[in-house]
Amino acid sequence: MYKENYPSELLGNAVDAISGLPGVGRRSALRLALHLLSQPAENVHHFTEAINALRDDVVYCRECRMISDTDLCPICSDKGRDHSTICVVESVRDVMSIENTGQYHGVYHVLGGIISPINGIGPSDLTIRELVDRIGKAGGESLEVILALSGDVEGETTSFYIYRQISPLGVKVTTLARGLGFGDDLEYADSLTLGRSIAGRQPFKV
Amino acid sequence: MYKENYPSELLGNAVDAISGLPGVGRRSALRLALHLLSQPAENVHHFTEAINALRDDVVYCRECRMISDTDLCPICSDKGRDHSTICVVESVRDVMSIENTGQYHGVYHVLGGIISPINGIGPSDLTIRELVDRIGKAGGESLEVILALSGDVEGETTSFYIYRQISPLGVKVTTLARGLGFGDDLEYADSLTLGRSIAGRQPFKV
Repeated sequence: MYKENYPSELLGNAVDAISGLPGVGRRSALRLALHLLSQPAENVHHFTEAINALRDDVVYCRECRMISDTDLCPICSDKGRDHSTICVVESVRDVMSIENTGQYHGVYHVLGGIISPINGIGPSDLTIRELVDRIGKAGGESLEVILALSGDVEGETTSFYIYRQISPLGVKVTTLARGLGFGDDLEYADSLTLGRSIAGRQPFKV
Repeated sequence: MYKENYPSELLGNAVDAISGLPGVGRRSALRLALHLLSQPAENVHHFTEAINALRDDVVYCRECRMISDTDLCPICSDKGRDHSTICVVESVRDVMSIENTGQYHGVYHVLGGIISPINGIGPSDLTIRELVDRIGKAGGESLEVILALSGDVEGETTSFYIYRQISPLGVKVTTLARGLGFGDDLEYADSLTLGRSIAGRQPFKV
């Protein structure tokens, strides 16, 4: 049998590297490494260059901290969007999800994470300072800030922390509606969600 | 909404590259790209360098064509192994699987693929020529060649092609036992497998 089960140290190193990706086990990593090995060298170089370029040349929007190809992202530079509504989200992916709904026409602020003492992430690791500055510059009273963070403990903690920081600036602070998901069965909803759905009931629209 | 749904061309390129991997869809590719983006640059470079090194610096054993760090792989250079038994397999992964059983003490020959007209892979794309030369040099009569290829049409075709090439050299040609898998339920076995299991029945051992 092979030392550490890999016939080549180069292969073992590649498997180590690939299995470091989230959700990729060592078996899948081996499959991917052998796939890459079977490809023409130029394809593999194209693959690694695309990843290096992403990491090395990425730009974050100076206004909202969203990943962007320009100093000011397309959303922040769009005059047609409502710049008095700022949606605060955890990550780049959240912006993409909300944009996909087509229901939101304001701008964003990407925190770059969530307050999580267990992972060693405190408020100073996020772009909360930048959010406060941004609100200060824009003049608080005319703004609405939507706290669009997850409904778990870390999300609630972060929302509360940000609320405390920005409410003295006179902004209107809102949060996402919580309740039954579209198509959810009432019978199987957990009582916390159902409770919030009742408390946050809306006028019936036809 | 974003052009082609990606906020950055660099991100879009990375997602394109990652989703080219087998079994990775665009959603997973996005997740992996954003994960890489969130990592320190040196980790990402380490990742891409491991993959480039695998592709660029890989060596194949001159004897068996197995991936190796040396000109002659550890198995081929091991005097304790039976060099008169050559197990012919499709890929590097098959060698690793057989080695993992701990049941085989001969040497290997890696074809690097399987004859598949639909994928444009013919006998000349594989290391069949090298296998014939190798058998010729070793003196055919003293050798056993085990054709350890898949039981599908392509595997059978490749086995038959190789059999035709090497049987004139006087080697003993064998193939893997086919039958019920360990722990398989007889009731649910397909009739072809069950038929082969009966035809290839073995003396009962206690």
